[in-house]
Amino acid sequence: MARVSQEHLDARRRQILDGAALCFARNGFHATSMQDVLKEVDLSAGAVYRYFSGKEQLIEAIVTDVMGVIRDVYERAALESPPPMPDELIARTVAHMERERPALTDDGEWLFPRLMIHAWTETRRNDELAALLGEGFAAVTAAWVKVVVRYQESGMMPGDVDPEAVARTLMATVQGFGVQHVLFGGFSPDSLRAGVRALTGMREAAGGIGNQSVKSG
Amino acid sequence: MARVSQEHLDARRRQILDGAALCFARNGFHATSMQDVLKEVDLSAGAVYRYFSGKEQLIEAIVTDVMGVIRDVYERAALESPPPMPDELIARTVAHMERERPALTDDGEWLFPRLMIHAWTETRRNDELAALLGEGFAAVTAAWVKVVVRYQESGMMPGDVDPEAVARTLMATVQGFGVQHVLFGGFSPDSLRAGVRALTGMREAAGGIGNQSVKSG
Repeated sequence: MARVSQEHLDARRRQILDGAALCFARNGFHATSMQDVLKEVDLSAGAVYRYFSGKEQLIEAIVTDVMGVIRDVYERAALESPPPMPDELIARTVAHMERERPALTDDGEWLFPRLMIHAWTETRRNDELAALLGEGFAAVTAAWVKVVVRYQESGMMPGDVDPEAVARTLMATVQGFGVQHVLFGGFSPDSLRAGVRALTGMREAAGGIGNQSVKSG
Repeated sequence: MARVSQEHLDARRRQILDGAALCFARNGFHATSMQDVLKEVDLSAGAVYRYFSGKEQLIEAIVTDVMGVIRDVYERAALESPPPMPDELIARTVAHMERERPALTDDGEWLFPRLMIHAWTETRRNDELAALLGEGFAAVTAAWVKVVVRYQESGMMPGDVDPEAVARTLMATVQGFGVQHVLFGGFSPDSLRAGVRALTGMREAAGGIGNQSVKSG
């Protein structure tokens, strides 16, 4: 048997994960068989099963991988001074995912939102995936919390708000973006960025409820 | 046959819709049968079919009803001067839904997020529901856009951002809240409100990227 370099092994593993992610994003976890994955990656069963014992292990590896790629962005941002504004971080997350996982595109459509929604749906019948997704979500939340604490320490955000509430609200924008992207279309990452930017650039009306009567007086 | 008042007819219709919404929120649209609905509302088939021809019509009525209740909040807010801040509007939406549709609670859990997610999932096999949900989403977006335009006219938000991008970002926070509420727990409407409040209360770091070196110089 020929010796195979670690680099080659890693590349082959990546190829299988990318192909499986494409299949899952297109048709969901439940409706995708290992046969579909083998066809997509164009490898023999033996070659694929050397890396993954089956569909469950593929799903686990993909969720862990994607959560790790996303978390990286926030872990690094928490070290910057001042920390980047939320819209910049959302743009970085998208750019980072597209750069690190370019295969997650089909006919020009970015499949990550679709994959995310299939994973949520699958948790209804797959307790292990539910647990894994919960752990991944907690880890990404913890990384976002670090950034929010830095906002508060830097005087960029009022300090009297629970950082986790802010972190979860920011993650909600990305999750809701995914829902709209898949279900209703017409919502690009650039639009999400512009929307978040406009929100953080808001200020309350100067005169409160009375300012209209001041003008007319 | 006894004459029946309009009030009675409306109350009966409401009772059926509330019971059906409970069933759908618990088990999803697909897994719920008309038998389940009849059992929940404790009425005869004849009594229920006088109002609704079947499950499809019930689903349609519920989605249209809920979207209408939500849209109302934004339509009215767009008439206020100054318009209420986003966190106040999100709080009003929740309070309004709880007041107008108190039956959408099961053992103290607010079932609206669950119902929302089941509706999204169901669109994969129900084109009519997908179309209806799309229309409802567009109508709520249009109402939110009116509020965002008022933010911009009142100088509360920079005017150079597409109001639809902001409206869709705000709706994304509510959709993402629903996902987290159902999948991961521990995210209350109050936390969402606090998170949105903190975001609209942000300001950029005073010195930009250079402020750290100024301090150390």
